[in-house]
Amino acid sequence: MSKTLIFGHKNPDTDTICSALAYADLKTKLGEDVSPARLGEVNGETKFALEQFGVEAPALVQKLEDGADVILVDHNEFQQSADNIENAVIHEVIDHHRVSNFQTKEPLYFRAEPVGCTATILNKMYKEKQIELDKHIAGLLLSAIISDSLLLKSPTCTEEDVKAAQELAEKAGVDLEEYGLEMLKAGADISDKTVKELITMDAKEFAMGDAKVEIAQVNAVDVSEIYQLHDELVSEITATVNEKGLDLFLFVATDILNNDSEVLAVGPEKANVEKAFHATLDENDRALLKGVVSRKKQIVTALIEQF
Amino acid sequence: MSKTLIFGHKNPDTDTICSALAYADLKTKLGEDVSPARLGEVNGETKFALEQFGVEAPALVQKLEDGADVILVDHNEFQQSADNIENAVIHEVIDHHRVSNFQTKEPLYFRAEPVGCTATILNKMYKEKQIELDKHIAGLLLSAIISDSLLLKSPTCTEEDVKAAQELAEKAGVDLEEYGLEMLKAGADISDKTVKELITMDAKEFAMGDAKVEIAQVNAVDVSEIYQLHDELVSEITATVNEKGLDLFLFVATDILNNDSEVLAVGPEKANVEKAFHATLDENDRALLKGVVSRKKQIVTALIEQF
Repeated sequence: MSKTLIFGHKNPDTDTICSALAYADLKTKLGEDVSPARLGEVNGETKFALEQFGVEAPALVQKLEDGADVILVDHNEFQQSADNIENAVIHEVIDHHRVSNFQTKEPLYFRAEPVGCTATILNKMYKEKQIELDKHIAGLLLSAIISDSLLLKSPTCTEEDVKAAQELAEKAGVDLEEYGLEMLKAGADISDKTVKELITMDAKEFAMGDAKVEIAQVNAVDVSEIYQLHDELVSEITATVNEKGLDLFLFVATDILNNDSEVLAVGPEKANVEKAFHATLDENDRALLKGVVSRKKQIVTALIEQF
Repeated sequence: MSKTLIFGHKNPDTDTICSALAYADLKTKLGEDVSPARLGEVNGETKFALEQFGVEAPALVQKLEDGADVILVDHNEFQQSADNIENAVIHEVIDHHRVSNFQTKEPLYFRAEPVGCTATILNKMYKEKQIELDKHIAGLLLSAIISDSLLLKSPTCTEEDVKAAQELAEKAGVDLEEYGLEMLKAGADISDKTVKELITMDAKEFAMGDAKVEIAQVNAVDVSEIYQLHDELVSEITATVNEKGLDLFLFVATDILNNDSEVLAVGPEKANVEKAFHATLDENDRALLKGVVSRKKQIVTALIEQF
């Protein structure tokens, strides 16, 4: 039997990469033959975290072999997972998202908890298994929590996440606030990004009723900088909508200092955005959503309700 | 907010009833406002267990209100759950089956482990929460494990289940083997059952390739007693095959003492039974399958392979 691959979702974010690395570390220490993997390019924020703690990014996997042994972290929906996931043997899932479009033929270990970050669950699992956290693993788990919780500001952030972050910062030997802001700023640096990258680097597709909806999120220190590219964004997103037959593409630019998001809606169902958020799209099809920072808890749920 | 209902699957078995009762006990002790429920009649085996430990069966629930707060134990597939489950808010799932036909809008606590019984997971959860097990709850959890594992003989039974059963028997103050056999015998008492009841009381339908297959299982201390009703069984099953347009109806009489099953095959695809189990149906269309006791792990898988 070949190694069991551990990976997070497509368009990997910091939680997905760091959780794959950490869970592979834990499993290896428990004597299991596993290997961390990733399904796409590592983003700037994650790179910053990996460099900070001296860890290499996991290997890129493009498509799974039939019957591949896999463990999913930070996702469960098949459309967010590796190509050919339907024909893999999924042994475990460690996640903090809703469950949807997921199925197995056999019983498995499936652990989802409604916390802000997969890394928070993994931090708990190290304790349960009584395995001491190495400093660099503590750093990776901390980075994941900071990323998913927008430095503990997101409504998805629970008390458990806060406690874990404090604990992990101490173990990693960094100041939580200072390191956190530095890491988020590194991720919000869009100066070297193409428009194509902006709309794909953290994009997820969702089935909502009969509709196909894609939601891309980009963090920024200055949202207006992103919308200087408004026309290019619209034309690139329109091309994606046509190519994938999407009903809606929602581009979400999140202000990490003020904790708001300015969204851009493209596609035949864009009117649903207005209804879902009781907001009005301006002549550029954009709207400022005050206090909205969480795709999972504030955007996806409101849109599902609407569709 | 009304109480959160905790229930297992339709056609409830001992694990489903006892796990709902035990998890409601644990949650109540943790200060949560929950209530156990059941989706159907309590069977003879479960009745025996409840009487033994002096516990009332949970209340019957027919259909959920829109937006009802629920926790599922011992199942996750919606077609096995309460009517209107699609419109309930599922807060938790504690299960040991494959995951399929399940979805939520929101993140939840979903805990599935590949063990033989939901009760084994619950026994662990009492420890994690540091809540002492009352004697009668230990008895319920023990009964569930005995039922699902056919007194630790089924191939679905793991080392964890065995350990839990031994621990629980001690806490419940009963002899594992002696109580276990007594309980299984109570469940295998078919003296008051009609032929119609025998073929429906634990029947499940499966789609296998293009074929519609129904498999009914009945536990017995003396299988020959069941087949004294051979002619009536055949005529009742034939009526069911015609009525539902089944390709195969497999009636499985499982000998709980010798851990074998004698099956009766009816329907146009009955030859597939011979191929799937490398067995020959006799002139009565029956065959003894040595060592076969698990519908899930031995019968369904072999037939799916064949069809």
